[in-house]
Amino acid sequence: MYPETYEGFQIDSAESWTDFKKRELKFKPFGDYDVDVKIHACGVCGSDVHTITGGWGPKNFPLCVGHEIVGEAIRVGPKVTLIKKGQRVGVGAQIYACLDCKQCRNDNETYCRHQVDTYGGYWPGTDIVLQGGYSSHIRAHEHWVFPIPDALETNLVAPMLCAGLTAFSPLVRNGCGPGKKVGIVGLGGIGHFGVLFAKALGAETWAISRSHSKEADAKKLGADGFIATEDKDWNEPHRMTFDLIVNTANSSEGFDLGKYLSLLDVHAHWVSVGLPEGEGQEVKSHMFMENGCLIGASHLGSRKETLRMLQLAADKGIKSWVEEIPISEKGLAEAVTRMKKNDVRYRFTLTGYDKIFG
Amino acid sequence: MYPETYEGFQIDSAESWTDFKKRELKFKPFGDYDVDVKIHACGVCGSDVHTITGGWGPKNFPLCVGHEIVGEAIRVGPKVTLIKKGQRVGVGAQIYACLDCKQCRNDNETYCRHQVDTYGGYWPGTDIVLQGGYSSHIRAHEHWVFPIPDALETNLVAPMLCAGLTAFSPLVRNGCGPGKKVGIVGLGGIGHFGVLFAKALGAETWAISRSHSKEADAKKLGADGFIATEDKDWNEPHRMTFDLIVNTANSSEGFDLGKYLSLLDVHAHWVSVGLPEGEGQEVKSHMFMENGCLIGASHLGSRKETLRMLQLAADKGIKSWVEEIPISEKGLAEAVTRMKKNDVRYRFTLTGYDKIFG
Repeated sequence: MYPETYEGFQIDSAESWTDFKKRELKFKPFGDYDVDVKIHACGVCGSDVHTITGGWGPKNFPLCVGHEIVGEAIRVGPKVTLIKKGQRVGVGAQIYACLDCKQCRNDNETYCRHQVDTYGGYWPGTDIVLQGGYSSHIRAHEHWVFPIPDALETNLVAPMLCAGLTAFSPLVRNGCGPGKKVGIVGLGGIGHFGVLFAKALGAETWAISRSHSKEADAKKLGADGFIATEDKDWNEPHRMTFDLIVNTANSSEGFDLGKYLSLLDVHAHWVSVGLPEGEGQEVKSHMFMENGCLIGASHLGSRKETLRMLQLAADKGIKSWVEEIPISEKGLAEAVTRMKKNDVRYRFTLTGYDKIFG
Repeated sequence: MYPETYEGFQIDSAESWTDFKKRELKFKPFGDYDVDVKIHACGVCGSDVHTITGGWGPKNFPLCVGHEIVGEAIRVGPKVTLIKKGQRVGVGAQIYACLDCKQCRNDNETYCRHQVDTYGGYWPGTDIVLQGGYSSHIRAHEHWVFPIPDALETNLVAPMLCAGLTAFSPLVRNGCGPGKKVGIVGLGGIGHFGVLFAKALGAETWAISRSHSKEADAKKLGADGFIATEDKDWNEPHRMTFDLIVNTANSSEGFDLGKYLSLLDVHAHWVSVGLPEGEGQEVKSHMFMENGCLIGASHLGSRKETLRMLQLAADKGIKSWVEEIPISEKGLAEAVTRMKKNDVRYRFTLTGYDKIFG
């Protein structure tokens, strides 16, 4: 009655990272809490490109990536209560965790030691490598399947499932709201959501970018202010004035971290959400002494935050800036190649699934 | 009526850092809110050694260091309300800030942009280099002069004024208390206060040291547990279990920061209070991703925290582990030489001021 195989586009090696091959794929076993989703659209995430190019190290090829998924719930397990068959739903970058540990019980399922990424790893206890959303279907535990509010368009909401949530979670976890001055470093896929959501949450929102090239865009996205770090003494007028900075930059090359940290008020947080390839950064205690600031990182977000983010987007009419590309060998090659060059403002959504997968 | 000069032991250069010379010194001008303190004892702080040896870079020599001061208030300015003449008082590592800015108004006077260290810098608007407490007297704004509860002995309370506060402030600012598991890295002067205060605040307190050599001491200080990082896989049993770690280590040599960070629960803080000399540490976003932890630093503490710390020490009968050394050219040379070698458990207090300064 239900298909146990489906179709998707795979990459065979980091050397052939633009060479997508359409293949028959095998689901992980169907669990009592699982939902099968017929995919209608999928965002192209920076993670997809880091993964298929080998930038994050060796991966389990052949691999179908994609974890910003919107589609229809076509099958729900016998114990599923959160999702109804036929509902429009989203799936992001995580599809499982134990839901029983201290982390899971505290809405920190992202940090569960048993958490399972949407693609790339083995399904526990099997030799099945999990496959992502550049494909006809996805199977996920209901906790990681999210009803999409009617007000949100499929192609615009898709990138929120990873990039959006990655920006939203550290904002709400670190007090972004009215009366706060919040900076978003890097105006890419995640960064543009950072500006949209920080503003929607009521903060005085500043975009911080290397050059002035995206200043007009930042203002259109709602930024109250813009800082270009190519300007001389760019940090001076803003010393110790920011309550929070979310760093979405995808590279730490040429980054003078001390200058960025000088922007923070006492004990304020610098939270990185990107995972730059290559070397890290040198930090010295002196860099933190002027304001007692803290730096850290954030990984995705919880189900609760996902639902809150989607509702906020629906209530405030937040629209991702999306360029649609129909899914196909050629379309995918174009999407990942341009993504690698940061040639996108600010996110691709793959569409036209019905034509390719029937 | 009041002396405008006093006596103290100075160092002339980083090359002659054990060669203390007794000299006549000049006060900064007396302000309406100032208090003159006749010194009875002074702790020997790691900062003193970093400063006189040139480890923190060039300094304004000749210089008299020392900022863990206990003595008697012998003169109070006309606007002083917090201190009475004749009172036993302490002075720590800061003697001034504007008390008017956002930081000062929020008990963050340590982070005021106009904050003045007890010794080593110029008194604003003058060519007077401020001198520390290896001397007969100190002059400070009343906000940085603290009444000492009767229950505390002069020689034991002295090191609390810098080392104690440096440990205490990040503990109370980061939620140390009942139900929390708190780690103190490094069992030196600051670290031993970390263990004493974390325990007194009600936390499950763990000392984390390189070897087992100080394990018995840690237990005597009140530690509930001890971790030696020379042991194989030392971090494994404690992964994601600590709510806070205060790092008091004075060196980052051979430090595998990622392993320490693996101890932290979700979004928990790693707060460094030392200022190691030399190179910093490389950090990568990956090190923070497993638990979304944050790292930062803390600088001293507020007046409010100082008073709270002293009262806690009085109420709970907390005793610093102190070795007394009478102040003199020879005594000072011994103190700083042994301090440089970490040959002290856990703090020196200079005493016998009456004999030397009359």
